[in-house]
Amino acid sequence: MASLLDRVDSPQDLKGIPPGDLPALCAEIRSLILGTVLQTGGHLATNLGSVELITALHYVYDAPRDHLVFDVGHQVYAHKILTGRKSRIATLRQEGGLSGFSNREESPYDLFTTGHAGTALSTALGLACGEKVRGGTARTVAVIGDAGIGAGMAFEALNMAGEVKRDLLVVLNDNRMSIAPSNGAMVGYFTRLRTNPSYRKAKHDVAEAVERIFGGKAREAAEHWYHTLRYAVVPGHLFEELGFHYFGPVDGHDVQTLVRELRDLRDVGGPRLLHVVTEKGHGYEPARQDPVKFHGVKPSPKKPAPAPDVKVPPAAAPQVSWTRAFSDALCALAEEDPRVVAITAAMPDGTGLDRFAARFPARTFDVGICEQNAVGLAGGLAAAGVLPVAAIYSTFLQRGYDQVFHEVALQGRKAILALDRAGIVGSDGVSHTGAFDIAFLRTLPNMILMAPKDGPELEAMLRFAAREPGIFALRYPRDEVPPAIRGGKAPPVVLGKAEVLRRGPDAGILAYGASVYPAWCAARALRHRGIRATVVNMRFAKPLDAELVLRLHRELPFLVTVEDHAVQGGFGSAVLECLAGAGGAEGTAAPRVRMLGIPDAYLDHAERDRLLARFGLDAAGIAAAVLEMAGSPDRAAHPRPR
Amino acid sequence: MASLLDRVDSPQDLKGIPPGDLPALCAEIRSLILGTVLQTGGHLATNLGSVELITALHYVYDAPRDHLVFDVGHQVYAHKILTGRKSRIATLRQEGGLSGFSNREESPYDLFTTGHAGTALSTALGLACGEKVRGGTARTVAVIGDAGIGAGMAFEALNMAGEVKRDLLVVLNDNRMSIAPSNGAMVGYFTRLRTNPSYRKAKHDVAEAVERIFGGKAREAAEHWYHTLRYAVVPGHLFEELGFHYFGPVDGHDVQTLVRELRDLRDVGGPRLLHVVTEKGHGYEPARQDPVKFHGVKPSPKKPAPAPDVKVPPAAAPQVSWTRAFSDALCALAEEDPRVVAITAAMPDGTGLDRFAARFPARTFDVGICEQNAVGLAGGLAAAGVLPVAAIYSTFLQRGYDQVFHEVALQGRKAILALDRAGIVGSDGVSHTGAFDIAFLRTLPNMILMAPKDGPELEAMLRFAAREPGIFALRYPRDEVPPAIRGGKAPPVVLGKAEVLRRGPDAGILAYGASVYPAWCAARALRHRGIRATVVNMRFAKPLDAELVLRLHRELPFLVTVEDHAVQGGFGSAVLECLAGAGGAEGTAAPRVRMLGIPDAYLDHAERDRLLARFGLDAAGIAAAVLEMAGSPDRAAHPRPR
Repeated sequence: MASLLDRVDSPQDLKGIPPGDLPALCAEIRSLILGTVLQTGGHLATNLGSVELITALHYVYDAPRDHLVFDVGHQVYAHKILTGRKSRIATLRQEGGLSGFSNREESPYDLFTTGHAGTALSTALGLACGEKVRGGTARTVAVIGDAGIGAGMAFEALNMAGEVKRDLLVVLNDNRMSIAPSNGAMVGYFTRLRTNPSYRKAKHDVAEAVERIFGGKAREAAEHWYHTLRYAVVPGHLFEELGFHYFGPVDGHDVQTLVRELRDLRDVGGPRLLHVVTEKGHGYEPARQDPVKFHGVKPSPKKPAPAPDVKVPPAAAPQVSWTRAFSDALCALAEEDPRVVAITAAMPDGTGLDRFAARFPARTFDVGICEQNAVGLAGGLAAAGVLPVAAIYSTFLQRGYDQVFHEVALQGRKAILALDRAGIVGSDGVSHTGAFDIAFLRTLPNMILMAPKDGPELEAMLRFAAREPGIFALRYPRDEVPPAIRGGKAPPVVLGKAEVLRRGPDAGILAYGASVYPAWCAARALRHRGIRATVVNMRFAKPLDAELVLRLHRELPFLVTVEDHAVQGGFGSAVLECLAGAGGAEGTAAPRVRMLGIPDAYLDHAERDRLLARFGLDAAGIAAAVLEMAGSPDRAAHPRPR
Repeated sequence: MASLLDRVDSPQDLKGIPPGDLPALCAEIRSLILGTVLQTGGHLATNLGSVELITALHYVYDAPRDHLVFDVGHQVYAHKILTGRKSRIATLRQEGGLSGFSNREESPYDLFTTGHAGTALSTALGLACGEKVRGGTARTVAVIGDAGIGAGMAFEALNMAGEVKRDLLVVLNDNRMSIAPSNGAMVGYFTRLRTNPSYRKAKHDVAEAVERIFGGKAREAAEHWYHTLRYAVVPGHLFEELGFHYFGPVDGHDVQTLVRELRDLRDVGGPRLLHVVTEKGHGYEPARQDPVKFHGVKPSPKKPAPAPDVKVPPAAAPQVSWTRAFSDALCALAEEDPRVVAITAAMPDGTGLDRFAARFPARTFDVGICEQNAVGLAGGLAAAGVLPVAAIYSTFLQRGYDQVFHEVALQGRKAILALDRAGIVGSDGVSHTGAFDIAFLRTLPNMILMAPKDGPELEAMLRFAAREPGIFALRYPRDEVPPAIRGGKAPPVVLGKAEVLRRGPDAGILAYGASVYPAWCAARALRHRGIRATVVNMRFAKPLDAELVLRLHRELPFLVTVEDHAVQGGFGSAVLECLAGAGGAEGTAAPRVRMLGIPDAYLDHAERDRLLARFGLDAAGIAAAVLEMAGSPDRAAHPRPR
């Protein structure tokens, strides 16, 4: 049977498909997405839910001349398939393959490289305004979810769009979910729009009703009531108040209706909003039943399981994720300390707060995709005398940066920020990499920056932060917790004090957080090359253990700093500042310092381990850097973790 | 005549005043504010507008047990007067005196140290949530303006507050202005609430009308219409949709009505919004007529004008502000280049874009207090092929940080950020200091960071940025442009290239932006101490002129870096990173480096010149640092600008 999809490699091809065949085409696209994502991993539920909407948009609009902007860009697999990337879809999220998000490098149909939520209305409004300035006539459409539209940035753009009246269609893709169910009063409002008959009356009903109640001759006197009723019966008060024309709701899986509605709306002009109701996981029962679980799907294992006659090494201790270690530590702390409350910005699963929420529902606050409010709320909770712990991905904390300054650090009240996904994240790629948090937090007075080397230290640091005064940011990566380095117990956490793990006269390796374990492995391997390196688990990027850094600076021929963070302004930079301050005071010549970290570029997506290796942040890379600094020509060393 | 205000030093005293005397008391407070601010300078119009509201709040609520949170905190002079700071009010905004904003250090009645807008709903919601967790019974009130409530952060908090249903009163202080007139569709909505009779019908009218139209016996059948009408005639759809009960609008200068309304609402519980209409500059005709001009008032001159017989030195060239220099340069550029469009976030006057807007209204975008949307819009405008120049105060750009990353830097499209108020700002104090922009921008790949030494260089840099590909951030302080250093023309701006102003073998001073002129003055003065210093106008903090820095590092005994920015992660830190990278590669010992910048602490407000001197960032301080590094014991040098 000839496939419809075989004939479609571009939006132009799509326009040649008769409307009656669109449902069948959508079924094929859905099937391709499902087959692909179950292999490659990726965002499944949301992509199954957006097939008809994306197909209808490309059927009606003329991209890339017209501007289609997708919020977050994690729901665009159908868009990738329809815009010339069908043959590469199996490379999704693989190194060198297609990104899991919108990506400018991939296609002129992707207007932005994205991954953060709530931004599309603003950029689309910019496109619409720019089009007007240039005298162009291209149309602009922004597609945004019911969770993303709750972000403050989206509201700012709605509020402006309703005023400046450019040609802008906002498509609200309402699937009642962010990753977890959506939060905020506006979500309840969407539900009322979907379900309450008084909201769903068509506009012409209003005129009829006024006529019936007041009669033709009382029309003038009825003006007041007419006006009143117009506001009452037209659905979408909230959007209408903000200057938008509201249309909908429409069934987001009826592609023919979508095409018709979009055609009707295409040339209306001005700011308008089309409310499309979709279902996450549509067409695949397991994802439909549990869209949270199927939000992100892991790739299927690439290698076959070992045959029964292959000797399997005895199972190591089960590895847990940093997220799980944090979740356990926070729950344990909260059992003992009733002041502890937790905040998440729509990521209860991703941050491990789902387990906290299950045990302490009254002490959990899920603010939706609103990092600004997450941090501001923490400031208020701290002022109320409880102890807020806000768990936010490093890259998303950028959205709450001003609040970290203004609502938290400036106030000097106790609060804890737990930065998950700090550093390289792997296949989610560039928009999710947490490469900047040390730099943007370190510059703020009052901040205390910590990173644990392993699970027990994470718990110790969390308890330390709960106990001591201060404003703490604790970072850990999207990874598994490495094995413990020592059999014995690590020394207690003391403000601004590092832990020396190995002593050796030939080199100093100053490592921070997740880089401590590979640094220690590197030092073990270097021993066999005749280099006895000192290895320090720095624990604090601010305040730095200046005393130790200065001592090592006197005693050792060189230092190597290692961090899973941008080199610019990061932990290594703090070490240099410490040495410079001391250099001025003491007049000694500074030693050579080599800084290892994430280079100054936006990274393509790839497995975390591969990126760490590429940037020399694994044990082999650290050892090679030490050897190079030591003047050894041998750069081929590839020490392995024990 | 005995003054009422004489008897009031605390909210407790206030509660002893009979309600009938409140208008007279408010008149006294207003008079005190007016007399004070015309002397000290400060925010005049907004403080004249909030006297009755603040008085009524303290009359009805029991602060500090109850939580009163004021957004921005620039409208709280009456609050300061009523909470024990009356006798110090003449010290307003003076060094060592009262801050011009809410300030935790000053009083337990000030819950937060503030200055940024749109934050109060979030922190108040945190207080209300924390109160509930702790089992407390204190009430929470947030006062926010019609401009501040348009900030995305405020919307995020509204949306959450409507859902979690804590005891929270939001007082919307609607004066139809931010500093300039407020922007956004929501402002139009507020106007409709204030003026449209169909919005103003009281709730009981609804029931009556339904009764009249449908009759008692048709009541049941009328349920549908009743529901419809409830939404229609109750004012405040938008807030009601978000889960708030809306009350108002009420006259914000009728203190007795305010007291009555607040009493009625105090114990209602749940999220509710009281819409209070006030007038900026109320009671002082000049401010009422021109609230933009009287938003901020300069202090009256402290010294008497020179007597006629004193010889006045011939007038120097008139000094212009950096803001004006930017405004002129941008207007000149826009005359030639039709791609140039400008964006402001509610600061057309403060950023100098008012003049741009007057000449190019169709190319100007004032987004309101919405820095996220300002930067997101820039991303969209860049994608549309025009050239966005977003002029934002350094400290407020923190609110758009994630957008600088996600909508601008990550996309690699041309855009220009003009950072006014970068560095120390003077009497506005800690919340307005722009001390972190180099650190938080420098860590982002693709960013190009520049700072001009004077006006002509600002124009040259702007033209350079408009001409060359890249994403540019240009910083300059709240100050006057210093005199030109050379008679001749400065060399053209080249990416990543510095300008050497003086050559000398004894020391290297690497200065950035506004620090160049004092560095040059310091070097002139040092000449008389026998020290011949090299002075470099670095121009770029990223990319740094690595070649020059490395050469000076080889040739000179030490380097001093100077910047009007936090030491942590700033320009000096970039110099150290450059040297460390080179140290690894070349194996030379690094020289001593001394970093001058803003210390790692939140600053009290004081005049900019005094703070620069305190931190050693003026010519005298720079010279002293060089002398100290040179081993000279003479620290008493006080070179003066020529």
